[in-house]
Amino acid sequence: MVENGERILGVLGGMGPLASAQFMARLTLLTPAARDQDQIPAVLWSDPRVPPRLRDPGAEDPWPWLRRGLRGLKTAGCGAVAVPCNTAHGWYEQMLGEGLPILHIVEASAAELRRVLPSGTVGVMGTATTLAMRLYQDRLEALGWRCIEPSREEMATSVTPAIAMVKGNRVAEAYAPLAAVVRSLAARGAGAVVLGCTEIPLGIQAGPSRELGIPLVDTIDALALAAIRWAKPGLLEGSEKALAGKALEAAK
Amino acid sequence: MVENGERILGVLGGMGPLASAQFMARLTLLTPAARDQDQIPAVLWSDPRVPPRLRDPGAEDPWPWLRRGLRGLKTAGCGAVAVPCNTAHGWYEQMLGEGLPILHIVEASAAELRRVLPSGTVGVMGTATTLAMRLYQDRLEALGWRCIEPSREEMATSVTPAIAMVKGNRVAEAYAPLAAVVRSLAARGAGAVVLGCTEIPLGIQAGPSRELGIPLVDTIDALALAAIRWAKPGLLEGSEKALAGKALEAAK
Repeated sequence: MVENGERILGVLGGMGPLASAQFMARLTLLTPAARDQDQIPAVLWSDPRVPPRLRDPGAEDPWPWLRRGLRGLKTAGCGAVAVPCNTAHGWYEQMLGEGLPILHIVEASAAELRRVLPSGTVGVMGTATTLAMRLYQDRLEALGWRCIEPSREEMATSVTPAIAMVKGNRVAEAYAPLAAVVRSLAARGAGAVVLGCTEIPLGIQAGPSRELGIPLVDTIDALALAAIRWAKPGLLEGSEKALAGKALEAAK
Repeated sequence: MVENGERILGVLGGMGPLASAQFMARLTLLTPAARDQDQIPAVLWSDPRVPPRLRDPGAEDPWPWLRRGLRGLKTAGCGAVAVPCNTAHGWYEQMLGEGLPILHIVEASAAELRRVLPSGTVGVMGTATTLAMRLYQDRLEALGWRCIEPSREEMATSVTPAIAMVKGNRVAEAYAPLAAVVRSLAARGAGAVVLGCTEIPLGIQAGPSRELGIPLVDTIDALALAAIRWAKPGLLEGSEKALAGKALEAAK
């Protein structure tokens, strides 16, 4: 099925499905293109039935669902896979074992973080599982940033409910609790905040997020940019400077 | 690969890719769901390299690309296919020949049109090819509506360039020329306008489209609703009344 030299992006999605759709939209809008034919061919495997990505004893294992999707994308001819779900990266090594390169959302986000906050203290938001796995903290600390997280209470009363709101199609309601946590992280010294769950940028963008006055790393956009770099090497070189400028401007 | 009783939606997309992403977002947001697992499993085959859907002599034939996508979706286990590109429906019979049910965007849009304008004069916007094929006009006239179209000049100076703007990631610029044509159709007696090219709702929604004061049939939403009816029979019954109410309210 694969034609010589074509690069088809696989997207293992549905976790959640709105974040997958947003990934596809941002992949399109961030690709410098004058017409459809300049855009990146992609196959999105959006299976929202994947059980919640939990590490709790007794929780249903999402792995058989992730594996099924990866095999479907491989059969479709995809040459690499983006997974627009941060928590699913807890299964990164297993996913790699299926034989396709997987673009790592934390590496992609670290590249974007570097543009807006080259060093210093960064706030990391995410699901409770992502934070407990230290998916971002270990990597970002190894790269020289200091990480702070929402408190246990902020997780329970704001972040976790807001993620559930987005997943329940109540996107606009998610803004206020997420914005409160961004403000709290900024007050505790964060110079930028990584939105390390793909539902969080959806909620934050449903409100006046520019008024928060702090650079936000949208992990959907970061992964889309990594995918464009994979599919069309060199294409972003000029426009990435413009994007970095925009991010800094929004931060003012 | 298909488990007993599961209904996986195939989406033959990339024409254009932003419209496909919007279809996936609207499929999610229009599905009554409290959590990811209530949403519809789907595979989006987004191949923006499909040549423009033209019927011109000498134009490259899009059919081999459409066929490749349909075969990919069939292999992935999809049970029916939605094609969020109106003009591609000019190849509807050929697509059906690949053995999967194809949800017809014109039938889906006629169902939505009936909610907002049970009879009377309807404006039909679309690509020049869609209008020349009379994809909407023949079907809507058979169902009792009278159809009017943009003039040749409006097509050349407003609709066709606006569709190209959306495809070139200049979405916001497309609002003004599209809005001007909606107003012109309303002035000529249209009681509603069918946005019969999936790039058109993207452009219209980039501006204050509610100020246009006329019901607009979003063919992306119409197709998403048809897909939900296929995947989850009966689920929309209550909420569709609410949607119809919202559409009428927006029209006031």
